[in-house]
Amino acid sequence: MELFEAFEKRKEQCLSRTDLSRKGSVDANIESLVRFINERDAFFTTSSCSGRVTLIDGCFHGFEVQKQNCSWLLVAHQKCQKEDVIAALQKSSGDAVLKFEPFVLHVQCRQLQDAQLLHSVALSSGFRNSGITVGKKGRTMMAVRSTHGLEVPLSRKGKLLVNEEYIEFLVQIANQKMEENKKRTDRFYSCLQSALRCEDIFEKSILESQTSRPVYTRRRRRKGMKEDVVCTSPDEEALDGEEEVEFDAAIFSELHL
Amino acid sequence: MELFEAFEKRKEQCLSRTDLSRKGSVDANIESLVRFINERDAFFTTSSCSGRVTLIDGCFHGFEVQKQNCSWLLVAHQKCQKEDVIAALQKSSGDAVLKFEPFVLHVQCRQLQDAQLLHSVALSSGFRNSGITVGKKGRTMMAVRSTHGLEVPLSRKGKLLVNEEYIEFLVQIANQKMEENKKRTDRFYSCLQSALRCEDIFEKSILESQTSRPVYTRRRRRKGMKEDVVCTSPDEEALDGEEEVEFDAAIFSELHL
Repeated sequence: MELFEAFEKRKEQCLSRTDLSRKGSVDANIESLVRFINERDAFFTTSSCSGRVTLIDGCFHGFEVQKQNCSWLLVAHQKCQKEDVIAALQKSSGDAVLKFEPFVLHVQCRQLQDAQLLHSVALSSGFRNSGITVGKKGRTMMAVRSTHGLEVPLSRKGKLLVNEEYIEFLVQIANQKMEENKKRTDRFYSCLQSALRCEDIFEKSILESQTSRPVYTRRRRRKGMKEDVVCTSPDEEALDGEEEVEFDAAIFSELHL
Repeated sequence: MELFEAFEKRKEQCLSRTDLSRKGSVDANIESLVRFINERDAFFTTSSCSGRVTLIDGCFHGFEVQKQNCSWLLVAHQKCQKEDVIAALQKSSGDAVLKFEPFVLHVQCRQLQDAQLLHSVALSSGFRNSGITVGKKGRTMMAVRSTHGLEVPLSRKGKLLVNEEYIEFLVQIANQKMEENKKRTDRFYSCLQSALRCEDIFEKSILESQTSRPVYTRRRRRKGMKEDVVCTSPDEEALDGEEEVEFDAAIFSELHL
């Protein structure tokens, strides 16, 4: 119980803090998802990004352009146009790199089984680099991450090394990745709602059987929960860590293709 | 105890199986590391890659070139030359993509605290996308992953879209990433040896204090363990999940730069 109290206290502190991110607010595309998660007792989000195309201009320090010592020439959380990138590149005086970074979410979880549920949903939705962190004092974190990115150097010391046709091709690919990212994020949201709804129903039926009341199905409505998600059966809770390991097995064989 | 027995059985089965990866063997650069891990009672590896530059030729299915329906024009686990890439590109008839993929390792762990130790070491060594998977039956996996990749489309339907100067620049960047990758992998190996040595010493001193024998320091030698790693103190075991969470906090603020 102490652990739960500590969790609730951390949640309260975290959600009341000012958003210290560069943007200062949650991305519009995932506001509803983040709110849904934070309304659940077992979770709270600590950072998120809906997915973005960026053009950063800096200096390669051996192996990567350092985020800290660079200019952000372009940040787009939606599809962008070739003209946006070309205009941004004109401001480059260093080593400009175009990146596509998919949806990322960090969630603190009340206990390990909550993290496992979230992890399962993330893997099923295509976020294959997701993983759990367990701290010494039992602090449990789940990170939703994906693999399908882009990282393309475009200029060196301010000199553009590619032509307009290439930039157009690149923007097309980045936009397709943005589209796929949106599909996966939506899938994650609806699977999460479904999995949590099934968990609620399952817990409710356990409680009812323990109190020897007639068993019937009630839909317990959570604040802000969408009602357009169908839960197939409580067995959906079986979408769990064991399947995560099997899913990871699929990743393993793919890794060495 | 049942869980430990099940773990040992899985370990035995896994390590006696044929390597089903495309390459058919562990990459030379990490053979020693993989062997070291597999000699520890608490771990066994299920898949690994030391890091590689690849040129794959396929067809973009909306957002990415599918690994399954493509040709591997180039695979290099060491630094490569511009000429290698140019020669490989001449064989392209589809959408060729050059990638740099850093060190990846999947390790099954006997119990959660073993995964936590490994996770800590991975994060400290720069593998920031590392994470734990916990299965329903307690099966625990730790994946060592990094962020510093490259993914650069170079041709469309067999037509090269960049010039030789760009390819030279790209190869230079890929080689620098390969170099950084090697440093991080070496750091991971030496930190792991150090952390496990400290754990061994700590466990030994606990055992000795329980059996009321005079306390003295003995170095317990593990098969194949390098003796050139210095353990600063048993407190190094404090390099643990809690610090992982703090480390993640650093990632969080960086995420929204």
